[in-house]
Amino acid sequence: MKPLILITNDDSIDAKGIHHLVDCVKEMGEVYVVAPDEPHSGQSSAFTPNFPLRVIEHPDYNGAKVRSVTGTPVDCVKLAMHHILPRRPDLLLSGINHGSNAGNSIVYSGTMGAAFEGCMQGIPAVGYSLLHHSLKADFSECTPYITDITSRVIAQGLPDGVCLNVNFPAKVKIEGMKVVRAARSRWTEEYQEYLDPHGKPFFWLTGRLLNEEPESTDTDLYWLDRNYATVVPAYADRNATPEIIPVSNILGI
Amino acid sequence: MKPLILITNDDSIDAKGIHHLVDCVKEMGEVYVVAPDEPHSGQSSAFTPNFPLRVIEHPDYNGAKVRSVTGTPVDCVKLAMHHILPRRPDLLLSGINHGSNAGNSIVYSGTMGAAFEGCMQGIPAVGYSLLHHSLKADFSECTPYITDITSRVIAQGLPDGVCLNVNFPAKVKIEGMKVVRAARSRWTEEYQEYLDPHGKPFFWLTGRLLNEEPESTDTDLYWLDRNYATVVPAYADRNATPEIIPVSNILGI
Repeated sequence: MKPLILITNDDSIDAKGIHHLVDCVKEMGEVYVVAPDEPHSGQSSAFTPNFPLRVIEHPDYNGAKVRSVTGTPVDCVKLAMHHILPRRPDLLLSGINHGSNAGNSIVYSGTMGAAFEGCMQGIPAVGYSLLHHSLKADFSECTPYITDITSRVIAQGLPDGVCLNVNFPAKVKIEGMKVVRAARSRWTEEYQEYLDPHGKPFFWLTGRLLNEEPESTDTDLYWLDRNYATVVPAYADRNATPEIIPVSNILGI
Repeated sequence: MKPLILITNDDSIDAKGIHHLVDCVKEMGEVYVVAPDEPHSGQSSAFTPNFPLRVIEHPDYNGAKVRSVTGTPVDCVKLAMHHILPRRPDLLLSGINHGSNAGNSIVYSGTMGAAFEGCMQGIPAVGYSLLHHSLKADFSECTPYITDITSRVIAQGLPDGVCLNVNFPAKVKIEGMKVVRAARSRWTEEYQEYLDPHGKPFFWLTGRLLNEEPESTDTDLYWLDRNYATVVPAYADRNATPEIIPVSNILGI
C-alpha cells in the first residue's frame, strides 16, 4: 500500500504553497489535503475547544483529495485523523508556508503547530516555509529539496518526538542545505497606534525579527542569510529536564 | 523600587483565578493585570498579526492596575510590554488557570503561551493552574505554594530560556510539591458529530487526556494523581539540538 500523506498549512486551502507541495510529493503516496478554510498565520498550537467545526469537500487537486476545515491548523490535523482520513497517515507535511518560520518564529507558527501536532501523535512530520510573503511566491527552487527530504523521511522516519522545520531562502539559487538549530531571536514588537473615527485608540502589531546571535554558524538565520536551505530538528514537547535540579535548588526542595 | 509584576491568564479578566493570583502576590511588588477580555483557552502561543487590538481600562483591583486586551494571552504580554507597563516587568505570572495544564496540555495552553512569551523576552515567568474547571473553583489551598514559589523566583530568577509550569491538584489538601517533567500523554481526540437544522454535519472536540506512562515517578501526571503540586521546568524554544547529527544522517548531509 502506498504511504498515506496528510498535507496541511496555515495559509489556507487556497494558498499557492500548499498546491506546490502536493505537486512535489504526489508520486510518493496517496495524498490528502486538509487545510484551514481561511488564513491562520501566527496560530501556533491553537485549537478550537469551544466552537463547532465544519469540514468542506473540494474537487480533487492533482490526484489529491481536498478538504477544508473551519478551524486552525491543529484542528485540521485532529479532525483529519479522527474523521477524514481512511487510515492513520504515514507522514504529515505542512506548508509550503508563504513567509519565514526561522528563528523564534517557530514558536508562533501555525505551519509548525500542525507539524508538532502530528509529531505528538507519533507521525513523522515536516514543515516547509519559503522566506517570501507574496501570494505569488515562486516555489520552484524548493522542489528538489522537498522531494529529497520527504522521500528520506518516508523511508527512514524521524527520531521519536522530533519533527523538522525546513526554511528556504527566497528569490535565489539555493546554495545547499544545513541541519542547524533555530537562532536565538526576538521580534521588535512595535505597535502602530491609530485613532478610530470616534477618537479611541487601537493598535496593530508590526516590527521585525532581530537575530540575537548573528555570528553563530550553527543557526538557521545565519545560513538562510547566505542562501542555504535550513533544517531545524524541533521537539514537540517543552520539557526542560536538565533544569529539574537547578529549579529544585531555587525552590528549596 | 518594588518589583514590577505583570499578571495575565487565558480565562479572561473576569476569571476568579486571576483575582486570586493578585491576592497572593500583591505584597511582593507593583502589580499590573493585563488579560484577555474574553476566554482564550487552547490558544497556545497564538497572536494577532492581522487585526487591530484595543486596550480597555478597568478599575483597580486590590491595589493592582487592571487592563484588558481584545486578543490572546500572547497579545496581552506583547502589548503590556510595548504600551501599558511603566517599565520592563521583573516577573510574569500567568493564571491561576481554571483547569489542568499538565502532561501535553502545556503545548496547547494559553496560560503557558503567555509564560513562554515572557520567557522569550528574558522575563522570569511562571504559569499556575488548578485541576478544576469550575468558574467557582476554590484556590485557597494554592496560596502558600504560590507565595513561596513567586518570592523565590523574584529573589533568585530562573535559568535562561526556562519558565515554570505549576499545576495544583483540586479539592484536596496538597501533600507537597515535586519538580518533575511533563508526562508523555495525548488526547483521545474524540469528536462529537451533530447535524445542523439543515441536515449538514458539524463537529465538536471532546475526549480526555491519556497518560502514556502512568508508572513514571518523575512526571507531573503521576504526582498530581497523588495530590502533590507539580513544577515542570519548560523551554520556550523548540530546539532539538542533540538530534542535529541523527537528522543529518537521515538527510544524507
